[in-house]
Amino acid sequence: MSSRHSHDRMANAIRFLSMDAVEAANSGHPGLPMGAADIATVLFTKVLKIDPSAPHWPDRDRFVLSAGHGSMLLYSVLHLMGFPKVTMDEIKRFRQLGSITPGHPENFVTEGIETTTGPLGQGIATAVGMAMAEKALQARYGADLVDHRTYVLCSDGDLMEGVSQEAADLAGHLKLSKLVVLWDDNLISIDGATSLSGSTDQLARFAASGWATTRVDGHDPAAILAAIEAAKGAGKPSLIACRTTIGFGAPKKAGSEKAHGSPLGAEEIAATRAALGWEAAPFDIPSDVLEGWRAAGAAGQAHRTAWEARLAALPADRRAEFERTQAGRLPEALDGAIVAFKAKAAADKAAVATRKSSEMVLDAITPVVPEMLGGSADLTGSNNTKAKGAKAITPDDFSGSFVHWGVREHGMSAAMNGIALHKGLIPFSGGFLVFSDYCRPAIRLAALMGERVIHVLTHDSIGLGEDGPTHQPVEHLAALRAIPNLLVMRPADTVETAECWQIALETTDRPSALILSRQNLPVLAPGGAENLSKGGAYEILPANGKAQVSLFATGSEVSLAAEAKKMLEAQGVPTRVVSVPSFELFLERPAAERAAVIGDAPAKVAVEAAVRMGWADLLGSDFAFVGMTSFGASAPGKDLFKHFGITPEAVVAKALDRLKQN
Amino acid sequence: MSSRHSHDRMANAIRFLSMDAVEAANSGHPGLPMGAADIATVLFTKVLKIDPSAPHWPDRDRFVLSAGHGSMLLYSVLHLMGFPKVTMDEIKRFRQLGSITPGHPENFVTEGIETTTGPLGQGIATAVGMAMAEKALQARYGADLVDHRTYVLCSDGDLMEGVSQEAADLAGHLKLSKLVVLWDDNLISIDGATSLSGSTDQLARFAASGWATTRVDGHDPAAILAAIEAAKGAGKPSLIACRTTIGFGAPKKAGSEKAHGSPLGAEEIAATRAALGWEAAPFDIPSDVLEGWRAAGAAGQAHRTAWEARLAALPADRRAEFERTQAGRLPEALDGAIVAFKAKAAADKAAVATRKSSEMVLDAITPVVPEMLGGSADLTGSNNTKAKGAKAITPDDFSGSFVHWGVREHGMSAAMNGIALHKGLIPFSGGFLVFSDYCRPAIRLAALMGERVIHVLTHDSIGLGEDGPTHQPVEHLAALRAIPNLLVMRPADTVETAECWQIALETTDRPSALILSRQNLPVLAPGGAENLSKGGAYEILPANGKAQVSLFATGSEVSLAAEAKKMLEAQGVPTRVVSVPSFELFLERPAAERAAVIGDAPAKVAVEAAVRMGWADLLGSDFAFVGMTSFGASAPGKDLFKHFGITPEAVVAKALDRLKQN
Repeated sequence: MSSRHSHDRMANAIRFLSMDAVEAANSGHPGLPMGAADIATVLFTKVLKIDPSAPHWPDRDRFVLSAGHGSMLLYSVLHLMGFPKVTMDEIKRFRQLGSITPGHPENFVTEGIETTTGPLGQGIATAVGMAMAEKALQARYGADLVDHRTYVLCSDGDLMEGVSQEAADLAGHLKLSKLVVLWDDNLISIDGATSLSGSTDQLARFAASGWATTRVDGHDPAAILAAIEAAKGAGKPSLIACRTTIGFGAPKKAGSEKAHGSPLGAEEIAATRAALGWEAAPFDIPSDVLEGWRAAGAAGQAHRTAWEARLAALPADRRAEFERTQAGRLPEALDGAIVAFKAKAAADKAAVATRKSSEMVLDAITPVVPEMLGGSADLTGSNNTKAKGAKAITPDDFSGSFVHWGVREHGMSAAMNGIALHKGLIPFSGGFLVFSDYCRPAIRLAALMGERVIHVLTHDSIGLGEDGPTHQPVEHLAALRAIPNLLVMRPADTVETAECWQIALETTDRPSALILSRQNLPVLAPGGAENLSKGGAYEILPANGKAQVSLFATGSEVSLAAEAKKMLEAQGVPTRVVSVPSFELFLERPAAERAAVIGDAPAKVAVEAAVRMGWADLLGSDFAFVGMTSFGASAPGKDLFKHFGITPEAVVAKALDRLKQN
Repeated sequence: MSSRHSHDRMANAIRFLSMDAVEAANSGHPGLPMGAADIATVLFTKVLKIDPSAPHWPDRDRFVLSAGHGSMLLYSVLHLMGFPKVTMDEIKRFRQLGSITPGHPENFVTEGIETTTGPLGQGIATAVGMAMAEKALQARYGADLVDHRTYVLCSDGDLMEGVSQEAADLAGHLKLSKLVVLWDDNLISIDGATSLSGSTDQLARFAASGWATTRVDGHDPAAILAAIEAAKGAGKPSLIACRTTIGFGAPKKAGSEKAHGSPLGAEEIAATRAALGWEAAPFDIPSDVLEGWRAAGAAGQAHRTAWEARLAALPADRRAEFERTQAGRLPEALDGAIVAFKAKAAADKAAVATRKSSEMVLDAITPVVPEMLGGSADLTGSNNTKAKGAKAITPDDFSGSFVHWGVREHGMSAAMNGIALHKGLIPFSGGFLVFSDYCRPAIRLAALMGERVIHVLTHDSIGLGEDGPTHQPVEHLAALRAIPNLLVMRPADTVETAECWQIALETTDRPSALILSRQNLPVLAPGGAENLSKGGAYEILPANGKAQVSLFATGSEVSLAAEAKKMLEAQGVPTRVVSVPSFELFLERPAAERAAVIGDAPAKVAVEAAVRMGWADLLGSDFAFVGMTSFGASAPGKDLFKHFGITPEAVVAKALDRLKQN
């Protein structure tokens, strides 16, 4: 059997597994797996350094199927390569409840899948983060321990999405030479020919951003392999345009959008079998083909064991540090550093903006947690995410711990997901809260995947002042709180900021958003050893007597509530203040604990310089709200709080009004 | 006085107005106005066809300051040109409460400003929509009536944002030859040199997408003018890189990020006055300079009056149609068409997906409302936004009414804003609800500006099935409802879909989102002449007897609630069903009306295949909720509703439980 014949049969195994699984599910996308089967066969059997028996081996190559709708390509390959959990039964249960073969690849469901894809553009941008992590870890641990590549298979749709272009710009700038993107250049998108909506010369476009580019016949395995080998030496990231035929092999539907997103149908499948000379029944893999694939799968083991020997030979402390950061465990010294920081902050009582508090926390913990890799979307001085002495990574030196992401919030957020997925580093960002809208598709994926990604979002209300409504978040707290599995924290002062940072770092199974003020805030939290923010809400100021009023507030409005408390108590109304750094953490507590925190004061008022949505889920219907009902305006922040009626006086008035009613 | 000297003084007037206003406000961005003053002077005095005495004249050229932080450049120019409302007093009140000179340009606040900018990338993408609208209207009305250009001044940050790249791709593809982008190529971003985070060759990058590109000295007025004149004949959109010095003229801060975003300070301002030979006091414009500017401002009037004469000469019906669509008034026949459609739908009782209902509505109303310009982000067959016989626009023929936007949700949404702002057309989109996340920054701007932009968002819940959690919206209804001034509507059937379309079209002061199902839904709404959806919620099925249970639901869950009602009434529990097509419309009604719709049944249950957030604001705390608390999963839709417990049985159980409690 010639090598080409063997390749063809191995590729056809992907094609038939895919089309048959889609047919059985009566749902799915056969076009991409059939079109890109040759690319995948070359990549997985000749190029990728992976070991199916150790899917999480740290120095493996990464493969990202950015065009996630082609998931059957990946499941086929994982099965054929011998990933033990991806059984033929699972392939037969493609897209069924409880299978490990969902409609789009989900890394938290299927071992061997590096990231969750489907929303176009995310995969390639996530892969940029993986390649950054590799380069950063190699700078820290050396090429003996960290030396792998990141490969992406993407579609036209991926390249049309802006997020991919942000990521491509960054990858070119940072000279991520171990990133290779194979573009399934099939000239077809869902609506029909790609020429319906685009005429960009993608090779020229990527070359403009510092990529090596080339074009090959995507059905010529030798040409594909040669292009990949050339890419390895390019010294920059590479885009390989692979001209393919969508639905390759299907006599009537190949080359047409009809092959993209629905089952081919029994007749076309039969015709494809005839055309490609494939006699095996559905889900039956000829033994020569399976043997070929399994041999390729087994080849990775030697790489892994050699690497394990190198790891074992490391000095004990280096090895322990590598293994600790790979496992995502925090250093033991962190807790003490946070406790000391809080005690000092509570003693100093310096009124600073919580964005500044965050910088102070970073100064204190960055030396303790060297695996943190932070940055800012070109707002470094505003987000305060650069710790004292933190060095920025540059194209030629990745030993630093700070990233100048440029004005690319979306690309940044997706790349952060890639850094977290890669393991070994803890990514955090800097951005304005209002521009979390630019990041949402990637933040959502972080929440879905349950990755530790930390978004530092500053300038968190009308308090930012003169920049006006385009820059003033109003709905963003609610919109972020609506995302399942995202931890949203809005600390009230320097102490709570430290506590929220600690929670974000310790929370390994979901992303966090730290919502920070531009304006100065006094220190109110006690600063003891216990992390009070962990409960989501706690009484920060007790009433002077039996509470008649409970005030609930977050972030910058906690000190505003404290002012209102003073005024109410001056009028003889005992008032307590509850700080609510996190809705999610509070709502996760047992009902009795929540009731105790909410208390039984006859009047309840919530204060937050944002829309009301979400507060009723904490407090029921028996409360008044002081906050925003519209977009903001351009004026000094203090004028705006007055203009929009978010003042201690307004809180007092609402509290007294509720006392009268009750 | 030489022409160059005159130009310099006119440009310096922008520089000093800007730096002095920023200084007075103690807040703002002097760097861009000072750096781009020469570009703006050339553009406004030699190129733009505008008339300060008629800021809304339909055939004016459009100017978009994509780099909105440079707002003082625009206010300076508007004042100097003679826009009557932009007085010197307003410039002195830059960034103060109630002024018409807010921190970033807001078109709804200041006459002469074409769109609201500040979030980077939005301006250039919005301008692409304006240029599309011009080309489409010229195809409809001829060049005698519609023949103007769109100019953009953008920054490095604008070009880094993915949304600008999506828009640039599209502009190149559509050969928007009347779009000219002037890039303030000053090599500086907030963090410092742009080389910190980028090395893309922007001219090559735009050329790859079919743009004409050139580079000029951005302080050489003759070169700038020549480049613009050349761009007019390029036959494609043009990018002119204008190499400038940020903060031009400031001896110490020019060329540095220090000039970007804060006042220069008294000392540097004095030094700048000396360096540029400017002797006038702050806010004092030398009379020769003001005369020069005012003469340029007055020059536009002749263009306008000539155009008005051409408009007056049109046949009465053509003129009436032009004026109607420019004013955004709907044709009188629309109401009848909708009423007839509803009557037929209620009689036919065909169970179809509401995305299909929406297509049927479009088929019925597109002939009546020819100014509709719809499209899809490469999901035409899934979003059902292409009406029968609708022709797609192509680079060479803009007479169509459908846009193949490509996989560019964000660029699409921003361009739709531009189409709406341009006037004369009503833009609507097609996309998946889950990918509204990609569109949010632009949707938010539409809401802030109060523009009639209609987002058709299909595949609105786990009901979409096998594509899995990456494609299943869970939090998106809440997240969209959180945006102030956005109308979110989720119709239950074909009748409500028609009603919601009518509301969206009739709502001229805010954008709408139509949230539509992938799965079939029975017709339940009565289909009478009255638009019941306008109230936001109404009793769609009365109880058989005095209601013991009220079920509240939206969209696809209304028919699920109807099933539960049947089951409850079979058990002798009279149950009514309230359909809630729109939270916003309902919450805007008087409390007494809302109370009447909510009713006094002892048990209330809300059903929505989404997170609970927001429902308490409608129903208080005394209700049960059947919905989602996590991300979805990949499986057939029906299996998922069962898996996540969103079933008639679950509704019945919750209702009976609440009856027991109450």
